[in-house]
Amino acid sequence: MTMQIPEVVIDRLPIYRGFLVRIKEEGRTVISSHELGIELDVTPAQIRKDLSYFGRFGKQGKGYVVQDLLDELENILGLDKQWSVIVIGLGRLGRAVASYPGFKEEGFNITSCYDVSSEVIGTTINGIVVQSIEDLQNDLTKKHVDIGIITVSSEYAQNVADLLIKGGVAAILNYTPSRIQVPKEIELKNINPILFLQSMTYHLTNLNKGN
Amino acid sequence: MTMQIPEVVIDRLPIYRGFLVRIKEEGRTVISSHELGIELDVTPAQIRKDLSYFGRFGKQGKGYVVQDLLDELENILGLDKQWSVIVIGLGRLGRAVASYPGFKEEGFNITSCYDVSSEVIGTTINGIVVQSIEDLQNDLTKKHVDIGIITVSSEYAQNVADLLIKGGVAAILNYTPSRIQVPKEIELKNINPILFLQSMTYHLTNLNKGN
Repeated sequence: MTMQIPEVVIDRLPIYRGFLVRIKEEGRTVISSHELGIELDVTPAQIRKDLSYFGRFGKQGKGYVVQDLLDELENILGLDKQWSVIVIGLGRLGRAVASYPGFKEEGFNITSCYDVSSEVIGTTINGIVVQSIEDLQNDLTKKHVDIGIITVSSEYAQNVADLLIKGGVAAILNYTPSRIQVPKEIELKNINPILFLQSMTYHLTNLNKGN
Repeated sequence: MTMQIPEVVIDRLPIYRGFLVRIKEEGRTVISSHELGIELDVTPAQIRKDLSYFGRFGKQGKGYVVQDLLDELENILGLDKQWSVIVIGLGRLGRAVASYPGFKEEGFNITSCYDVSSEVIGTTINGIVVQSIEDLQNDLTKKHVDIGIITVSSEYAQNVADLLIKGGVAAILNYTPSRIQVPKEIELKNINPILFLQSMTYHLTNLNKGN
């Protein structure tokens, strides 16, 4: 059941889920694929197709029961669990990430932070004492970590990824502009603001041409 | 020619372009859609389809001339231009963003920064003196801004977006977890790390089940 689901579909599921959380708070109990589609800028047919990968949801002409769809999506996405996250690189970006309040609320618990700089090691961020990167390898033999967030300088990103993978971390969120190579069983996502900006300039360029 | 191109295709173009820049630096002059596909985890057929939206590239059985494809992609994406960018919200995240060295290299010039806090206004980040958010509206009547990056606290994101749109800014990069409403002619991208993490936990969940 969980095989061959296109990555773009999986990437949309958290967006559906976020929207359902919001309308549930507003007291909505049922929603149509048409309404979901308008809100999320996806066709109703696409929404039905996306959700059909995971079994049968909704009744013809009746729409989706918000709570049922929400429960199912949270189960599919593993959001009913707690996840152990570490942050490597506590420069400006790393500190911003490590102190982002949204992670804990969503079950992502930052358990350790690592840096290479003696000025940063030993300081506290969001209640966590920053450790030396030299502790990382040994720590990973002793505790399970689900996700590593890489916020080091670009040139060190691959080395850090290699350390994480060797230590059994199966998912990496890469905030550096560096392209990291990982084995295909490792889950890697890249957050590169340049790529976001560059797809926006496509639209701006065509806007300026008057299209 | 530029109409009805799926957003997912446009989002892939900067990734193709980044890869081509890299292999050009390595001295490669020709690349096949097969190789592009392996590198980027997209099928060769998908790559040919993506690029076909923008005209004819490559010759059957000969692959793509790296420089030609690169020139064309940079032209399509508007990367041969300079873009004026402002950052609103100079907390930890905003400071990390405003000091990110990659923007300028890629033609994204941060021209002004705004904040609401008297402790931050007047400080310098990356050579730019942070101005009061109260200057924003007036500034936008006097100078053209292409892109606004929103790094304020969530609860102010919509207000800032409204100010930007009123001032003629056509593209917004939203770093807050807030969902911003914009008219459909405005280009909006959201960078929400939670969404990245949540699509990774889908894979981790199924990994743990042994799939």
